[in-house]
Amino acid sequence: MKSFKVALAQFSPHIGDIETNVQKMIEQANQAKKQDANIIVFPELATIGYPAEDLLLRPSVNKRTAQAFEQLQAVKDIVMVFGFVNATEDGQRYNAAAVMKDGQILGIYNKQNLPNYSVFDEKRYFNEGHQHLVFEYLGHKFGVLICEDVWSLNTVQQLAQLNVESVLVLNASPYEVGKPQHRIATLQELAKQINIHVLYTNQVGGQDDLIFDGSSFVINNTGEVALRAESYKEQLYFVDYEVENKAYKTVETAPALDTMAEIYQALVMATRDYVERSGFPGVILGLSGGIDSALTLAIAVDAIGADKVQAVMMPYTYTSQISVEDAAEQAKRMGVTFGIAEIHPIVNSFMQTLYPFFGNSPADATEENLQARARGTLLMGLSNKFGNLVLSTGNKSELAVGYCTLYGDMVGGFAVLKDVYKTIVFELAKYRNSLSEVAVIPERVITRPPSAELRPDQKDQDSLPAYDVLDAILYAYIEEDQSQEHIINKGFDKEVVEKVIKLVDRNEYKRRQGAIGPRITSCAFSRERRYPIVNGWKAGN
Amino acid sequence: MKSFKVALAQFSPHIGDIETNVQKMIEQANQAKKQDANIIVFPELATIGYPAEDLLLRPSVNKRTAQAFEQLQAVKDIVMVFGFVNATEDGQRYNAAAVMKDGQILGIYNKQNLPNYSVFDEKRYFNEGHQHLVFEYLGHKFGVLICEDVWSLNTVQQLAQLNVESVLVLNASPYEVGKPQHRIATLQELAKQINIHVLYTNQVGGQDDLIFDGSSFVINNTGEVALRAESYKEQLYFVDYEVENKAYKTVETAPALDTMAEIYQALVMATRDYVERSGFPGVILGLSGGIDSALTLAIAVDAIGADKVQAVMMPYTYTSQISVEDAAEQAKRMGVTFGIAEIHPIVNSFMQTLYPFFGNSPADATEENLQARARGTLLMGLSNKFGNLVLSTGNKSELAVGYCTLYGDMVGGFAVLKDVYKTIVFELAKYRNSLSEVAVIPERVITRPPSAELRPDQKDQDSLPAYDVLDAILYAYIEEDQSQEHIINKGFDKEVVEKVIKLVDRNEYKRRQGAIGPRITSCAFSRERRYPIVNGWKAGN
Repeated sequence: MKSFKVALAQFSPHIGDIETNVQKMIEQANQAKKQDANIIVFPELATIGYPAEDLLLRPSVNKRTAQAFEQLQAVKDIVMVFGFVNATEDGQRYNAAAVMKDGQILGIYNKQNLPNYSVFDEKRYFNEGHQHLVFEYLGHKFGVLICEDVWSLNTVQQLAQLNVESVLVLNASPYEVGKPQHRIATLQELAKQINIHVLYTNQVGGQDDLIFDGSSFVINNTGEVALRAESYKEQLYFVDYEVENKAYKTVETAPALDTMAEIYQALVMATRDYVERSGFPGVILGLSGGIDSALTLAIAVDAIGADKVQAVMMPYTYTSQISVEDAAEQAKRMGVTFGIAEIHPIVNSFMQTLYPFFGNSPADATEENLQARARGTLLMGLSNKFGNLVLSTGNKSELAVGYCTLYGDMVGGFAVLKDVYKTIVFELAKYRNSLSEVAVIPERVITRPPSAELRPDQKDQDSLPAYDVLDAILYAYIEEDQSQEHIINKGFDKEVVEKVIKLVDRNEYKRRQGAIGPRITSCAFSRERRYPIVNGWKAGN
Repeated sequence: MKSFKVALAQFSPHIGDIETNVQKMIEQANQAKKQDANIIVFPELATIGYPAEDLLLRPSVNKRTAQAFEQLQAVKDIVMVFGFVNATEDGQRYNAAAVMKDGQILGIYNKQNLPNYSVFDEKRYFNEGHQHLVFEYLGHKFGVLICEDVWSLNTVQQLAQLNVESVLVLNASPYEVGKPQHRIATLQELAKQINIHVLYTNQVGGQDDLIFDGSSFVINNTGEVALRAESYKEQLYFVDYEVENKAYKTVETAPALDTMAEIYQALVMATRDYVERSGFPGVILGLSGGIDSALTLAIAVDAIGADKVQAVMMPYTYTSQISVEDAAEQAKRMGVTFGIAEIHPIVNSFMQTLYPFFGNSPADATEENLQARARGTLLMGLSNKFGNLVLSTGNKSELAVGYCTLYGDMVGGFAVLKDVYKTIVFELAKYRNSLSEVAVIPERVITRPPSAELRPDQKDQDSLPAYDVLDAILYAYIEEDQSQEHIINKGFDKEVVEKVIKLVDRNEYKRRQGAIGPRITSCAFSRERRYPIVNGWKAGN
């Protein structure tokens, strides 16, 4: 044999739907076979999808997995390597990979390194494996690793000592900014160092707050990248191993994306998968004339198409004419259904009802929140009536400091920009505008000073530091977990830092009730930042 | 020496506030000394409190812990055994106990068994210890264990083989129904079996969704209970070891509580601790005339006093006169501030604004939700203006099947009955009424058929099965994690079971945005039931 062909199935499972996933796996295996692949590699836990969370504890997982095996055994003439839940007779449960050919199981591998930090909770569900799996096929020696395993030098070195030529790595590695390139760069070094070919197959698709970018790849033992799959796309990729050259033949590879393209496409896929897999016919969102809702609108349209997107402008006394015009203009440029709903009568009816209780109390944030909640309730009414999902439009900077109204602008099932800092919102808006001849987001939406328009002449910067300063402090505190003292020592104003950190700490209760949204940073306000609400911690040194 | 005295500090830490906790520990140690105690035992992780979650990852935990040690070293003439975060120089972090006397550290113990299931995530934060700690003092041989350790027969037997006479167990063991008695019954057997005295000190207090009941105890190696501390009370308890008898002298012990008393007091403590530790001046809640809000009101009053509780009735067209009367009567009997806010004008203004969008669409749940959201917004307005925390009043049965309105009746910071099934709500109402001569909850609130009053003549049982059936199905599905097939085979109607399970599965998105509330079951909708929102799992066999 002069060569063999490996298919990397950059696969998008529907979490928990083992039956459908397995049908898709069979189809993909047959398709790979038609294209003369000898081996097909699926991602980590492909049968149930990642992360299935407590579905892994359901009593029938084992029975369903056994049925999946039966069905997969019908596939002939191709070696399938796929992730599954391995429940053994002694009551252990493993995050495992099976190597199957013509209905025979050639080997089972149990993941050895179980991540239990950041967004990962694998020790809640799985036991650790302690053995390597090596199989020879077509005169070539393969090893199998699962995700975290390949980041443990110790594990990889042990495997290499078994004279493995190619390691098949099954992954469900969540996206964060720069991660696609980071994985490749790290494993290029590793492949060279230990003289092994690395075939890295990653899950693709959005799952709740997690984005799996795919971005699968093949690296030769020289460190050369033989294949780089597109990000955010479910597809089969193929590489040929040439025996004479002892290397995988380089095929045309997807170029690495610029940062803004990478983030934008991540948000688009996450939004599409959330909407479609939850079965919503479309989405609805409030357009304020500001940049956050404008960007959310563009992402929604790119995700599911303009015909499935409804936008509503809900002006009040403090809404400027510019905002109304810009909202209408955005909707027009994007081609979505657009409506205007004045909220004066609603806010007035609330105020009249509350007046006897409020007495002579001076106006404060209460009145501002009433506006936001009138809007939230209108959006929910439209959502309830026609079934569209409400997208909330707040960004990470706002959510961090609580500059948002619970049950108001926080209303919604999916918060598209939840993990996007305001400074990045601006960049993404410019990026999106660069994609078409006519800017879909009117220029002045990007250039005018941000305002919540809940008070006369209000500007965000009246209550918050400038966004570049705010975001830098937030990044240091949240992503880098730096102390208050440390951040002040970097040169930021002491009072500003103290205020920002206090706001972050105090607003955990708000974030806890917020919609989920796609994670693009290394520390989103989601499953990886677990702070108590009642909390006596005092920032300081 | 004929005897020595051990103090069990049933301690209520403020999570994350190391400085305040340590000051309290010093005071309690000094108080114990005054009462001639030779040893004082604090709970697990007493310095930072349990669970501190990702506060454990803050960069200054080590420095703050070092400061805590310095302060504790000032305590003289009593042995202190306390839980703390042990960060070692090799970068490991342990859930540890220190034995300290006169400023000297006599020993450090690192917890060996780290729970990482249910509500526990200890493997996210801690490394496992591998060594026992035994110390001799006053001619007596003591061992130290931390919480989960004592449930591992293997660990306890190893310790017993070191000829330990008394084991000091430091705990942060969360409450669930029946747990106080269960702990004692299990450890009575163990104490006899391995011939060891068990001194069990538990944390007390509410922390977000978790309730620590205290209920500390001492069991002699005969299995005899020498001390049983009161539940839900922060206090020092003392036992004397009599050398001649080789046993702790039995002291008057708190009687075990009846189930309803146990649950009721748990909810009262949880509510008090949440309100007070979050710094709210009081609470506000909507009274509907129904049993859920009536019970929530009673718990709130018992927790923080009638003068800090504000109740509002918000009637609409479908609200019966009985409901208005009963709400007013409840408020009067409990002595709380009461107001009525009609929501007609608000609902009308919403409908008028939405009419152009709705067209001729028939009325459905949308209109019902508007009523609930008008009420939620009113409560939030009053909360924003005067600072009181909104208590939400929904129960577990409703929340399970989504019989509640997001941003409507789900509004609030703390959901007192979140983990209380409707059938238990009835029992708790009767229990509370039994405590005073005049029933605080009018009888007909308990006896009339439950209704959300969102449609004319609506009854809960129009859309849901009878609550005893519903709760039995929910219990089997949620608490016992049984399959749909299994539940049907128990004799429940197939269609009903399928409908209920579908509702539970579909409403994860709602629960995810709900307020936290105190956990009293073995599977609350909180940190221990982690289901994906986007989820293709199909119930079945």
